[in-house]
Amino acid sequence: MIDKEHITEFLKKLREKIIASFETFEPTHRFQRKPWQHHSGGGGEIGVLRGNIFEKAAVNFSAVSGPNFPMQDGQGPFFATGISLITHMANPHAPTVHMNIRYIETEKKRWFGGGYDLTPMGFSYDEDTQHFHTTAKNTLDTHNPELYPQFSHNAKEYFFIPHWKQERGVGGIFFDHYSTDNPKKDLSMWQDIGNTFLDAILPIYQRRTLQPFSDQDKEIQLWKRGRYVEFNLLYDRGTKFGVQSGGNPEAFLCSLPPLVKW
Amino acid sequence: MIDKEHITEFLKKLREKIIASFETFEPTHRFQRKPWQHHSGGGGEIGVLRGNIFEKAAVNFSAVSGPNFPMQDGQGPFFATGISLITHMANPHAPTVHMNIRYIETEKKRWFGGGYDLTPMGFSYDEDTQHFHTTAKNTLDTHNPELYPQFSHNAKEYFFIPHWKQERGVGGIFFDHYSTDNPKKDLSMWQDIGNTFLDAILPIYQRRTLQPFSDQDKEIQLWKRGRYVEFNLLYDRGTKFGVQSGGNPEAFLCSLPPLVKW
Repeated sequence: MIDKEHITEFLKKLREKIIASFETFEPTHRFQRKPWQHHSGGGGEIGVLRGNIFEKAAVNFSAVSGPNFPMQDGQGPFFATGISLITHMANPHAPTVHMNIRYIETEKKRWFGGGYDLTPMGFSYDEDTQHFHTTAKNTLDTHNPELYPQFSHNAKEYFFIPHWKQERGVGGIFFDHYSTDNPKKDLSMWQDIGNTFLDAILPIYQRRTLQPFSDQDKEIQLWKRGRYVEFNLLYDRGTKFGVQSGGNPEAFLCSLPPLVKW
Repeated sequence: MIDKEHITEFLKKLREKIIASFETFEPTHRFQRKPWQHHSGGGGEIGVLRGNIFEKAAVNFSAVSGPNFPMQDGQGPFFATGISLITHMANPHAPTVHMNIRYIETEKKRWFGGGYDLTPMGFSYDEDTQHFHTTAKNTLDTHNPELYPQFSHNAKEYFFIPHWKQERGVGGIFFDHYSTDNPKKDLSMWQDIGNTFLDAILPIYQRRTLQPFSDQDKEIQLWKRGRYVEFNLLYDRGTKFGVQSGGNPEAFLCSLPPLVKW
């Protein structure tokens, strides 16, 4: 059996670790936290950092419940908890990263979902892409060597912008409705994804956030961010969940970039 | 009977009139035009002005057809033509305006739709709102005094941002699926909406585009534009039509503001 208390404790701790880690890049800026309550039960906490290195980063926790699951893939009373994270870097050479891990219980089904994916904002480095994917692969391979091929394929499909017929970024891993006959093993795999997220992204940020850039590089980044907004508002399931469940708009929209051009 | 040729000619001429009128505000900038073709038939022309007064304005024409109407409100072979217009002004005291008139034929139904609505970007002036609504009311009253109350109510409902529980702007008029037993009269009302659009907006722009503004005013505008993007990508039927019909993304996304903050 999956213990909800155990899961939310894990998520809260992991979130604090990520927040502390991001803050080491910022000598003078800190995450601003804002708790919120969900109308049908539970709530969450938004954490937004607007710094010099992280132009904007959101690291949010939520655990909400209600009598009617608002999406197509479940029904009846539900419980949904997760961390949702996104970064928009000041340096255009430093990619945006997105991470989400969530656990959902509905009347008849319970499942894990999540993943992490990387979106260069106009400047893509093979070295970074490779490191990011290798971290994901190594993590998943310890659980089941079939997972990485499947999850990275999912990410390729999911983070795709149909109207531009292009991928949002350089992929990563993504999974949803994950549930085998061994919930303990599922939980352990899912926790490992959360636990290795910082290994996947920190070396990239250590490299790229110090790289010099021009006004023109910045301009390219601002335009590229438009595709990110388009994806998040037109297609993203997390945003849809937020809209359809009457969630807190500050929470489901805080992934939007600080400054964008169209 | 409604003559398609006649309608597209009307739309093209009106579009040129609007373009010429907007360009009088800009001594050195002109609309950039870009024709495009629709995969299932027809096409259109995007016209985008990036000037000193109009930070970005799009005045687009399209006339597309295909074997399968992509929306819920019709089916089978379709023909859809219209003008779609939006402005984002450099001066935060000058509101954004949106105008659309469209005519649609599907297998079993044909109808008119459209309207115009005003969105102050942080600075709202009663004088402007009143002038805008009065122009719309006077126009519609000559056709049928029941129209303005209905159409302005529609706009209030349609241009509403559910996740913020607030209206997008200060309204205007909006109608869809308009079709009585007198198509000639329908056409004439619809044309009048197009023909009086400039009367509704130009006096406002003549006043506001010369008004002094501060950096802080501009900042407020940039944040307010975020709500516009959210509405257009999350809820707008025109955008949905574009996405679902596999339309040209440059056309259905060119309404997005030139610069936005979140």
